[in-house]
Amino acid sequence: MIKPPAIEGAPLTLSPIGYVRNGIKDTLPPDQIRAVPSRIILDSAFVDGLDGLQPGQQLMVIFQFHVSEGYELLQHPRHDLTRPARGVFALRTPRRPNPIGVTVVDLVEINDNTLHVHGLDAIDGTPVLDLKPA
Amino acid sequence: MIKPPAIEGAPLTLSPIGYVRNGIKDTLPPDQIRAVPSRIILDSAFVDGLDGLQPGQQLMVIFQFHVSEGYELLQHPRHDLTRPARGVFALRTPRRPNPIGVTVVDLVEINDNTLHVHGLDAIDGTPVLDLKPA
Repeated sequence: MIKPPAIEGAPLTLSPIGYVRNGIKDTLPPDQIRAVPSRIILDSAFVDGLDGLQPGQQLMVIFQFHVSEGYELLQHPRHDLTRPARGVFALRTPRRPNPIGVTVVDLVEINDNTLHVHGLDAIDGTPVLDLKPA
Repeated sequence: MIKPPAIEGAPLTLSPIGYVRNGIKDTLPPDQIRAVPSRIILDSAFVDGLDGLQPGQQLMVIFQFHVSEGYELLQHPRHDLTRPARGVFALRTPRRPNPIGVTVVDLVEINDNTLHVHGLDAIDGTPVLDLKPA
């Protein structure tokens, strides 16, 4: 095993650029959340950063799993004990060393600081950290 | 414009799970970096989290743009002033409000805590924050 380098420098601190709004307050299976249209309400300070995004394109949404606490290195997919446990990096579970989610969504419409998207699997109030062209 | 919600809670603090090694010390165009095979050296504490990943599969690598400082909301793609400026969220520039990169790579081989990958566009020493199945 190669000795990993010592952890260098300060930890990375991130602040939300906006929040998800879709009325989903509970943790549901991802495919049920994904079926509900979501809005991303961007902090108005960042609106100019949307220039060039086009309805109809795909967008990568990077967000914080903000209700997730802690993690295990081996987890049963979707808490299903009948399925064999796998490594956290082979799963998309929210219980991760760094609780970041990444989902590619369809961008339906942009109105000022509101992005209407389909296919996002993040609950209401989720802090959004970044948006990128997919 | 919808008034965005107040920023809630504490900022998110992340720590690297490992580092990129590929000998590339300078910032090159992404396609030139992507052509070089890279290794991801995982902190040995996380090795069990690789269980279930298979050579040949695609892997999403989430990393920190650790040499990037600051950002502008409107940027010329690849600093090319002949191309019109676009919003930061319509670009994959490292100069972003939250300096996170996401790239889907080919997983070639895993040896203990070392992942050999193709297609990563991150320079040597880049802190890796997360790995997910693509």
